[in-house]
Amino acid sequence: MTPPTVVPATETATPAAATATAATAGAPTGTRLDPWFGSYADRAHGMRASEIRALFAVANRPEVVSLAGGMPYLEGLPLDAIAEMSADLVRTRGTTALQYGSGQGDETLREQIIDVMRLEGIEAHPDDVVVTTGSQQALDLVTRIFVNPGDVVVAEAPSYVGALGVFRSYQAEVVHSPIDADGLVPELLEQTLAGLAAAGKRVKLLYVIPNYHNPGGVSISLERRPRIVEIARRYGVLVLEDNPYGLLGFDEEPRPALHSYDPEGVVYLGTFSKTFAPGYRVGWAVAPHAVREKLVLAAESSILCPSNASQLAVSTYLATADWMSQIKQFRELYRERRDAMVGALAEHLPSASWNVPAGGFYTWVKLPDGLDARAMLPRAVTARVAFVPGTAFYYDGSGSDHVRLSFCFPSPERIREGVRRLAGVVASELDLVQIFGTAGRSSGRDHDAPSPDLS
Amino acid sequence: MTPPTVVPATETATPAAATATAATAGAPTGTRLDPWFGSYADRAHGMRASEIRALFAVANRPEVVSLAGGMPYLEGLPLDAIAEMSADLVRTRGTTALQYGSGQGDETLREQIIDVMRLEGIEAHPDDVVVTTGSQQALDLVTRIFVNPGDVVVAEAPSYVGALGVFRSYQAEVVHSPIDADGLVPELLEQTLAGLAAAGKRVKLLYVIPNYHNPGGVSISLERRPRIVEIARRYGVLVLEDNPYGLLGFDEEPRPALHSYDPEGVVYLGTFSKTFAPGYRVGWAVAPHAVREKLVLAAESSILCPSNASQLAVSTYLATADWMSQIKQFRELYRERRDAMVGALAEHLPSASWNVPAGGFYTWVKLPDGLDARAMLPRAVTARVAFVPGTAFYYDGSGSDHVRLSFCFPSPERIREGVRRLAGVVASELDLVQIFGTAGRSSGRDHDAPSPDLS
Repeated sequence: MTPPTVVPATETATPAAATATAATAGAPTGTRLDPWFGSYADRAHGMRASEIRALFAVANRPEVVSLAGGMPYLEGLPLDAIAEMSADLVRTRGTTALQYGSGQGDETLREQIIDVMRLEGIEAHPDDVVVTTGSQQALDLVTRIFVNPGDVVVAEAPSYVGALGVFRSYQAEVVHSPIDADGLVPELLEQTLAGLAAAGKRVKLLYVIPNYHNPGGVSISLERRPRIVEIARRYGVLVLEDNPYGLLGFDEEPRPALHSYDPEGVVYLGTFSKTFAPGYRVGWAVAPHAVREKLVLAAESSILCPSNASQLAVSTYLATADWMSQIKQFRELYRERRDAMVGALAEHLPSASWNVPAGGFYTWVKLPDGLDARAMLPRAVTARVAFVPGTAFYYDGSGSDHVRLSFCFPSPERIREGVRRLAGVVASELDLVQIFGTAGRSSGRDHDAPSPDLS
Repeated sequence: MTPPTVVPATETATPAAATATAATAGAPTGTRLDPWFGSYADRAHGMRASEIRALFAVANRPEVVSLAGGMPYLEGLPLDAIAEMSADLVRTRGTTALQYGSGQGDETLREQIIDVMRLEGIEAHPDDVVVTTGSQQALDLVTRIFVNPGDVVVAEAPSYVGALGVFRSYQAEVVHSPIDADGLVPELLEQTLAGLAAAGKRVKLLYVIPNYHNPGGVSISLERRPRIVEIARRYGVLVLEDNPYGLLGFDEEPRPALHSYDPEGVVYLGTFSKTFAPGYRVGWAVAPHAVREKLVLAAESSILCPSNASQLAVSTYLATADWMSQIKQFRELYRERRDAMVGALAEHLPSASWNVPAGGFYTWVKLPDGLDARAMLPRAVTARVAFVPGTAFYYDGSGSDHVRLSFCFPSPERIREGVRRLAGVVASELDLVQIFGTAGRSSGRDHDAPSPDLS
């Protein structure tokens, strides 16, 4: 794998995201002696920055069209109103907003979260909710309280890279179970769980993204939802339902959450990162009573309490802004971008195949036969387009024939330009395949930690 | 131990902090069946709410003088200016402040943190800094990357309850090493480490609070600082220097950080929670290069990235407000409260003994012989005064002859009233000792998770 001969940027289109990766990328591993090398915990041994991360430092340059990130498009937010609201908050409730708060989260916000979740059929009590630093922290805490090293987590194939990173960091074994156009396949899930039970494996969690899947783009059908919950219950496996995109369907009403079928068998994770703004880092978990108690204790051990400033800002936004209309605007914005994406794919990349997601941020694209997404990435970045190779979304190293293309952040015009560039790269790769029988293979897995660039 | 016959409040003087504990306290363990009881990870088994937490739900009632918490007093902050600043931030840089950011933290803020740390003799580069969700998260992440179950962490005797909770949650064994009026005692530290080495124990961290110790109130003398660092280095133990209070000395200049003596041997933790405002949850770690790399990966796995909204608010405050003068004001405020505390102790509790802290938030009080701080707490809360029993600050269950009294949040008048009430409780306990030979003993350790109430 030859890195592109470009200079890492310090100023980019998305400066904040770029800084981290640039710093990480700019620090070559192994060139300085680590005096603490022998002191790390076992769980830290798998923690290393992947080649992909280093590349993303470059991919954040403004001349590169990034179809890689999961950043929402925030220009449409009523920033002036939010500015006023922020000032009022500090002026009138500053000594609360700037103080330590509850480990479980602000009570008013937890009540508002109940209202938000009712849109997806969840009936819960504010006591059942734990506010977290983004839903990523909820993922971390749930894994922390359930997973011993060697325990199995069953996840969709493919699954969210950031969740796989969490499971790996707790030394879980991840076993994938297939999805199709209607999401996780119950029959195959049952086979997976039966096989694991027969092998004497301890399965602790079934991790599922039910709506507008990251990276798969699909949603679990209504018919399958109760069946999946029932199967998990029968095998004694807690369902971990991660739902960042559920309210971002383009042409359909929100589907009932898995949680609504079995509140005692499902931990539900939500977030304001995609429907409002990720910069506050406000997510949440809803859990069965005893699990929720442990989540609060784990959260307090981890951060004492979530930010009151952030929580009260989100709470005030929910109380004073027309957040439902804002979500509708987001839906229309992202639908237009989805259309630009699939339109450009049809025009420029007919040799690939893809699904047409009915919501969310991502298209999952199968490359023409013989191509390796990970090996292709450096050449794509040189051609000024970035994507996430499918391998990032599998624990077992598969997925090299897929790429995730996100349509959330770039404008429709940039999306079309990005797909055009990608098509050029694919064409060159196909030429190489024709000449040499292969376009170059990547080796090994992506041991990616989750990162904001891949969210 | 008889709980006081008072009704848990929902509205209190510190509503946010009270909500969490009330929720936890209101949920009696074991009365509802936990269907997931058999699924928890080993590390979760020690996670349970202590009796003390339940009591603090009551202690947060307005009629109770709480000398228990570590909340800074925020009334003195320039709230109008901070309000304006917050509005400007969203108005002019909203799409950055509300967006995902770098996993390592905002680059400008990391530069400003370098300036802050220079006051304590630290020479570091912004690349060495990782911004965290309060320094509590830094504690969690450092422990996560270094500590295997069964590894030893050496901590001062006593030590910060929130750190002990983190070490326990990673199944570390904590071994205490004594402090005196000049802080951690090098000769005894050396004995501790030599004993552990001889016993074949693997010591991963030496956890130290060098300035205005929580709960001890003491600081490590200048003469001892290089010696402690040298001893740790000789035994191959990484120093974890936790310094929330270093700039809050009442009558002295900040002392050089342990980090300044050996940047490769020390991970330094800082926070804006005590010098500005805890509600933003902005802390940081400075670590040797390779450790810092792993910290960033662990941070991203845990929360993707710290809040841009919080980080930019703190960064703007540092850039536009006279934060040094604000810290001076805090020092004067807390000095006055320290004086009220030690004055009241001398007046009302001459049978106890205590130190006169030269900075920070806490006094460490030795009770008269025969008293048990933990057994006394429910009776104190009934008498409308709260403290943290010394047992919370020891891993091994000792400390029952001490209480931590904090003077940061209540007014001088309330502090004097609180000590007066405490003196009444102590007098009653001493009567019981005289009659029965004991005032009642508490049993078992406090398995406290860290909580905002104990911060």
